[in-house]
Amino acid sequence: MFTGYAAELKDDLGVRWQRVQALVREAGADGFLASSNVNIFYLAGRIFMGYVYLPAEGRPVFFVRRPCGLSGEGVLELRKPEQISGMLSEFKVTVPKKMMLEGDELSFSDWSRLSSCFAGVELVNGSALLRRSRAVKTSYEIGLMKKTGSRHAAVVARFPNVYEAGMTDQQWAVEMFRLMLDAGSLGIFRVAGASMEAFMGTVLAGDNGAAVSPYDFALGGAGMHNSLPVGQSGVVLKDGMSVMADVAANFFGYLTDCTRTFAVGRLAQEAVRAHQVAIEIREALAAAAKPGARCDELYALALGMAEKAGLTGCFMGMKQKAKFVGHGTGIVINEQPVLGPRSKDILEAGMCLALEPKFVIAGTGAVGIEDTVLVSTAGGVNLTPCDPDLVVIA
Amino acid sequence: MFTGYAAELKDDLGVRWQRVQALVREAGADGFLASSNVNIFYLAGRIFMGYVYLPAEGRPVFFVRRPCGLSGEGVLELRKPEQISGMLSEFKVTVPKKMMLEGDELSFSDWSRLSSCFAGVELVNGSALLRRSRAVKTSYEIGLMKKTGSRHAAVVARFPNVYEAGMTDQQWAVEMFRLMLDAGSLGIFRVAGASMEAFMGTVLAGDNGAAVSPYDFALGGAGMHNSLPVGQSGVVLKDGMSVMADVAANFFGYLTDCTRTFAVGRLAQEAVRAHQVAIEIREALAAAAKPGARCDELYALALGMAEKAGLTGCFMGMKQKAKFVGHGTGIVINEQPVLGPRSKDILEAGMCLALEPKFVIAGTGAVGIEDTVLVSTAGGVNLTPCDPDLVVIA
Repeated sequence: MFTGYAAELKDDLGVRWQRVQALVREAGADGFLASSNVNIFYLAGRIFMGYVYLPAEGRPVFFVRRPCGLSGEGVLELRKPEQISGMLSEFKVTVPKKMMLEGDELSFSDWSRLSSCFAGVELVNGSALLRRSRAVKTSYEIGLMKKTGSRHAAVVARFPNVYEAGMTDQQWAVEMFRLMLDAGSLGIFRVAGASMEAFMGTVLAGDNGAAVSPYDFALGGAGMHNSLPVGQSGVVLKDGMSVMADVAANFFGYLTDCTRTFAVGRLAQEAVRAHQVAIEIREALAAAAKPGARCDELYALALGMAEKAGLTGCFMGMKQKAKFVGHGTGIVINEQPVLGPRSKDILEAGMCLALEPKFVIAGTGAVGIEDTVLVSTAGGVNLTPCDPDLVVIA
Repeated sequence: MFTGYAAELKDDLGVRWQRVQALVREAGADGFLASSNVNIFYLAGRIFMGYVYLPAEGRPVFFVRRPCGLSGEGVLELRKPEQISGMLSEFKVTVPKKMMLEGDELSFSDWSRLSSCFAGVELVNGSALLRRSRAVKTSYEIGLMKKTGSRHAAVVARFPNVYEAGMTDQQWAVEMFRLMLDAGSLGIFRVAGASMEAFMGTVLAGDNGAAVSPYDFALGGAGMHNSLPVGQSGVVLKDGMSVMADVAANFFGYLTDCTRTFAVGRLAQEAVRAHQVAIEIREALAAAAKPGARCDELYALALGMAEKAGLTGCFMGMKQKAKFVGHGTGIVINEQPVLGPRSKDILEAGMCLALEPKFVIAGTGAVGIEDTVLVSTAGGVNLTPCDPDLVVIA
């Protein structure tokens, strides 16, 4: 454990290790060597360049390549991965026979190098196991998610204050990003999956709500340039457009997700109605977000309500539809589980879910909302409480 | 080729393909299947989710999973990588016997999946080959680097305008980020290497210039939180501190790098002198940045000048020193080559290099500068021209 950690964080890391260790033993492995920034942060409470070795039983070893000077129990300086095996022995930790690595995060080259470092050790991909553990937040993590969500919602509530008539979607977005940074956002937007990327969030105005994107987010947007084809397109905001702001918050390394839709003047009646349906779906999803609920059934619940409202065709996109209505969030914006039609996941208390029913209305744009909720026996507790209604901004 | 591209981009992509194809043939391979966002942007001029297959001779095939609706010569819709091999045959492209993949970018899982899709095909890691090709910019890319650099420098020149007495480093940084976004920055900061990450740049004030970081940038900074330990630390700017602003620019998918140092009031004489030495090193490096120059010798040149000035101990950091004084930049901030002591690289015309001699002065902070230069027979042409001197801001 690193020197200088608060007792609360120390205890919480202990809980995370025990949970992962149980999963490692269940998988018949002797240990996990984690290496991605995301999982090092999860298992060590800080980011460093190196590795965390968590044996199936006992205390973890932290192999730190950078920065220099970190200290604490089980903290060892490392120059290169070839040293790990020998250092484990010196540190009186048994070198594993079967070891888990992050096969979904390690590059092929890095996996191959580790494979040479651990000749004779059976290596298996344990990425899914860490995703599963990260999906259910510990009490310390829930504390951070709550603090993040409530500050997030307060910033979103101020988005209309920085709107000015005649702005483009990009200009308003920049003002929103600035509010978020001023409130302490670290800015960085961590996302799982090598082909996924975005800046701090997306602001979709008018027809850009229907624009399709390479990225597997709920909605896309054309973006400002072919090198980042997602989000605002530079369109001038005009009467009758909806503007959907989906800007993430990251104050302490944990992301909450929250979307609100604004109306430039008067929106078409269908858009207003669809927004109301989205609010109702979000309410129904939260009410159902209890331990034991099936993710595929939550998706079916949302789709059924959209169908009943005659809005299937524009639910979660038009030409290219998102195949989910919600997802876990935490250290990355797209944690497990996914609320999609083919999910086999079951909700557990402590999961944090972004619920995001959205519609795209031709001629108006995207409408709908998103909140991050904490799964509990009483249903999903909203962590990002702010007015869900369409707010008219001009 | 995608529908709607300007003739200039089309021609330029043709040049990139030919260059990569020559390297593929040199490596004895029959084709390259690229898959990372960075290399898809490089080879296709846009980002999509999917693959670019570039045979050793002939036209590329673009396999697009997302978004739907893209069209053009050689553009095929794909659901999953298992289809690629069959689609190549249908498209009358010979399935390769030896194929290059991005082994440094593909995850172990994704490489393994492709390996099953191409049973019997010899797969080799071609990441270094694409890095080598990307290092030397084409004429279209040079045009984008020039446009980016000159707009970048104009924004940096305005950093003092948004400074206010009593600000923290973070508050000033947010204002700088906003200027950059207002000028059209896409915000996203692409970097090679799984453990490398940052927001839009770093602003290091006072002793935070000496703080070490997990990330392999020239200098570090403690950051605002353990989940992103790099950059500004939240310190209030005070008389006698240097403030080093290293904020990248990305307007068109290509990053330029530029650092300027500001003085809060009067700095210690040693800091002022070290800054002047940095300017001289940067000049000397640019003068030497001609085709044929050796990267290790450029590093030695910089180190020698620091030594002569009696500043070796604080050159490129104190406790943890960067082992380079410059690096390529382009689609990612850390392109090839690296100007380091063990580099074997030789400069070529068309390379774009960030030259960044920096010193850390105890009690004052980081000083020095960084410019992005284009390697030419006349030496490095500065793409980020703005006043290199210490600017006193209070």
